[in-house]
Amino acid sequence: MIKVTVWNEFLHERKGEVVKKVYPEGIHAQIKSFLDTEEDITVRTATLDEPECGLTEEVLNDTDVLIWWAHMAHEKVPDEIARRVADRVLMGMGMIFLHSAHYSKPMKILLGTTCSLAWRDGSRERLWCTAPTHPIAQGLPLYIDIEREEMYGEFFDVPKPDDVVFTGWYNTGEVFRSVITYVRGHGKIVYIQPGHETNPIYYNPYIQKIIKNAVRFAAPCENLRDTLECSNEPAPLEK
Amino acid sequence: MIKVTVWNEFLHERKGEVVKKVYPEGIHAQIKSFLDTEEDITVRTATLDEPECGLTEEVLNDTDVLIWWAHMAHEKVPDEIARRVADRVLMGMGMIFLHSAHYSKPMKILLGTTCSLAWRDGSRERLWCTAPTHPIAQGLPLYIDIEREEMYGEFFDVPKPDDVVFTGWYNTGEVFRSVITYVRGHGKIVYIQPGHETNPIYYNPYIQKIIKNAVRFAAPCENLRDTLECSNEPAPLEK
Amino acid sequence: MIKVTVWNEFLHERKGEVVKKVYPEGIHAQIKSFLDTEEDITVRTATLDEPECGLTEEVLNDTDVLIWWAHMAHEKVPDEIARRVADRVLMGMGMIFLHSAHYSKPMKILLGTTCSLAWRDGSRERLWCTAPTHPIAQGLPLYIDIEREEMYGEFFDVPKPDDVVFTGWYNTGEVFRSVITYVRGHGKIVYIQPGHETNPIYYNPYIQKIIKNAVRFAAPCENLRDTLECSNEPAPLEK
Amino acid sequence: MIKVTVWNEFLHERKGEVVKKVYPEGIHAQIKSFLDTEEDITVRTATLDEPECGLTEEVLNDTDVLIWWAHMAHEKVPDEIARRVADRVLMGMGMIFLHSAHYSKPMKILLGTTCSLAWRDGSRERLWCTAPTHPIAQGLPLYIDIEREEMYGEFFDVPKPDDVVFTGWYNTGEVFRSVITYVRGHGKIVYIQPGHETNPIYYNPYIQKIIKNAVRFAAPCENLRDTLECSNEPAPLEK
Repeated sequence: MIKVTVWNEFLHERKGEVVKKVYPEGIHAQIKSFLDTEEDITVRTATLDEPECGLTEEVLNDTDVLIWWAHMAHEKVPDEIARRVADRVLMGMGMIFLHSAHYSKPMKILLGTTCSLAWRDGSRERLWCTAPTHPIAQGLPLYIDIEREEMYGEFFDVPKPDDVVFTGWYNTGEVFRSVITYVRGHGKIVYIQPGHETNPIYYNPYIQKIIKNAVRFAAPCENLRDTLECSNEPAPLEK
Repeated sequence: MIKVTVWNEFLHERKGEVVKKVYPEGIHAQIKSFLDTEEDITVRTATLDEPECGLTEEVLNDTDVLIWWAHMAHEKVPDEIARRVADRVLMGMGMIFLHSAHYSKPMKILLGTTCSLAWRDGSRERLWCTAPTHPIAQGLPLYIDIEREEMYGEFFDVPKPDDVVFTGWYNTGEVFRSVITYVRGHGKIVYIQPGHETNPIYYNPYIQKIIKNAVRFAAPCENLRDTLECSNEPAPLEK
Repeated sequence: MIKVTVWNEFLHERKGEVVKKVYPEGIHAQIKSFLDTEEDITVRTATLDEPECGLTEEVLNDTDVLIWWAHMAHEKVPDEIARRVADRVLMGMGMIFLHSAHYSKPMKILLGTTCSLAWRDGSRERLWCTAPTHPIAQGLPLYIDIEREEMYGEFFDVPKPDDVVFTGWYNTGEVFRSVITYVRGHGKIVYIQPGHETNPIYYNPYIQKIIKNAVRFAAPCENLRDTLECSNEPAPLEK
Repeated sequence: MIKVTVWNEFLHERKGEVVKKVYPEGIHAQIKSFLDTEEDITVRTATLDEPECGLTEEVLNDTDVLIWWAHMAHEKVPDEIARRVADRVLMGMGMIFLHSAHYSKPMKILLGTTCSLAWRDGSRERLWCTAPTHPIAQGLPLYIDIEREEMYGEFFDVPKPDDVVFTGWYNTGEVFRSVITYVRGHGKIVYIQPGHETNPIYYNPYIQKIIKNAVRFAAPCENLRDTLECSNEPAPLEK
């Protein structure tokens, strides 16, 4: 069983009428709902306004894969919580950053770059699979159409990904490395670009499939790590 | 002309008799001395005890490649200075981390992992070239012997490098990804493992050649970047 | 169920007394024997002296992962069979090349380089895990000792691997990228260096574990490919 | 001085009126003409109908970077010549494949995959820089518009590139990894997608700049290789 925690800042859905209509219970609730249908996945949620953002040591230690949606309140997440999340990833927890979470504190900490990009709302997007053997691409067609999505375009200031699983095309003339993966420490990281709060992206069965695949891909490996520190090895292996 | 700043915490050389004998003027002075002989390189130095660690905005803006040696006082570098250095790298400055600088604040910020490793003093090392076409390997033999060096061994908790230019072999039984490269933002980063303060590593002509090559490799590219921020692009390229 | 075919040229074991003692039924039989114990794997074997080298279209079409051991008779494999194997990999079959199969026709075809290396018999080897989250590394320790193995050393003329799962250390002073992976077309490829015919490598539980993991890693993905050819797409997706 | 040989099958330009109008002296002549203006580059040409395709041992041994344009007569290049070219690349010669040369014998040999793709004539294309620090991207803007080009789209069956320097966007709805690089053996390889014979691509100053940059990038490194064979090393480095 893969234990997923879906974290959402949960502000847009309570403040904006448009967003409320799309996600009346919150983006996290919608993501939870389609992951809940999977037999090997169990889901809880956490939001910004909970104590410690709902990301206590206890919760994180009980999380295999953390999904992160955020947009307007990145700075509201205390540095200490962001560091805690990043350290858990380095210890082996999987991490999926959605859409505007490219600018969240944990993503910036883990990737080390600014994660800045070009943007404009109101494009049609087509995701092209550029790594058909990747676990995240399984069961998905060569391309996926998204009727309306915020354009996130190059240059995307991230480290060269391990894999660019999907490359985005926009009718407005841009491209983007839309679904990308990294390993950092013992943890796997996936960034998935579609997911603007005013569009019903998380109702799209293909996007749901990408997220489900990403959860299984990012689930912790068997090899455990017992420390993030250097280890002094006093005894040489050879004399 | 490539403008290099060699930064050194400059503590070991003043506190320890052994180190003082090897580097009487400091590690930075020795690195400066062999880079100074290159016609296309101009060098200044900076140390921890200078105001702002010698790394004012002015100095950094006038630096093409920053070389960093540090060991016992990583925490003495203020967060603000470390962030300033990292941001300059993301804007395009080259960065070379030497030996124990694997644990420096700027390296951790830029790579996002712990950069932890296994260690023990007192090995012989042999560096094997595993990327013979890489600019940093030019003019160097297939392998380089180092009579005595501190063992830094795997697992080295860094992101998968763009290139592993040299892989280290130790007579005590370990291996290491010893000379590795990354691109982060517009900046190029090189980590070079040999360089323990008690060994005359920076007098070794091969190591000097590696550092000279690394300086030229990491020198800023022609394409400039004018911001680290996202850019809103109101006008679509297509209608 | 993963269908594995173990291919062996099966010459050393019939010609040399030393090898016959180590692998009386042939290397392929020993590999089959330890894979046969896995519930999700079913194994057949094929050898050079069978018609079409035992690698008919029928056999290959019924193979999920092909394991290849060869040394003295690479040239005896007809070009047509080598091409057939490579094409099956590009269509999605997994491929594991063992030890001296680095110089086999299918490996050279698929990787495009010479696959040449430095070699000498009679070393002790230690395999260091340099990618602990990789599926092939799961359940294995940080390092594995091999009492006696042929030294295969750098420079290893292969394309930069997707992952260097294990890096080899030799008591005789060399290093090697010993367990490496690639994706080519829809197929996954693993090269595993230990396995000299005079040493009981394939009785070593760690090496067996590496091969078992490699079989599962290289098993075909769900996404199928229906052609190796270009596709003309007369109808534009946009007008 | 970088010695470039531009190879062209030179058939379209003699058979088709449309192409003849665009490239009256042949595509190779046009490429030669803009490279000839560079002080550090000297150019010769070779075509399919010359003895040994104009690619004798002597010519190849005197070539630093080989540029290859071909489309309708890939099969007319003898296997022996294709192998000779590939071996020269593995020894260190740079290689630039243009447009439909994706399906040439040397490119398939060197990359090991089918190099197949989706295609349709008659799109507008925009090349987006996705690796702004790469030598091939220097002096070029964030994106380049091409008024009319043949669409080459994903899935492009090539190994994961070292770098995707430009990603192509098409008004007809596709994307492509348009300018990509590899190292194979001691040689550097660049593939550049624009260049359909009916379009005046090689008069475009940006494409010319990309090719000039690619020539300098692919020029042989200083480290020489003296053989493509394995080397037996009888004397251990350690006792």
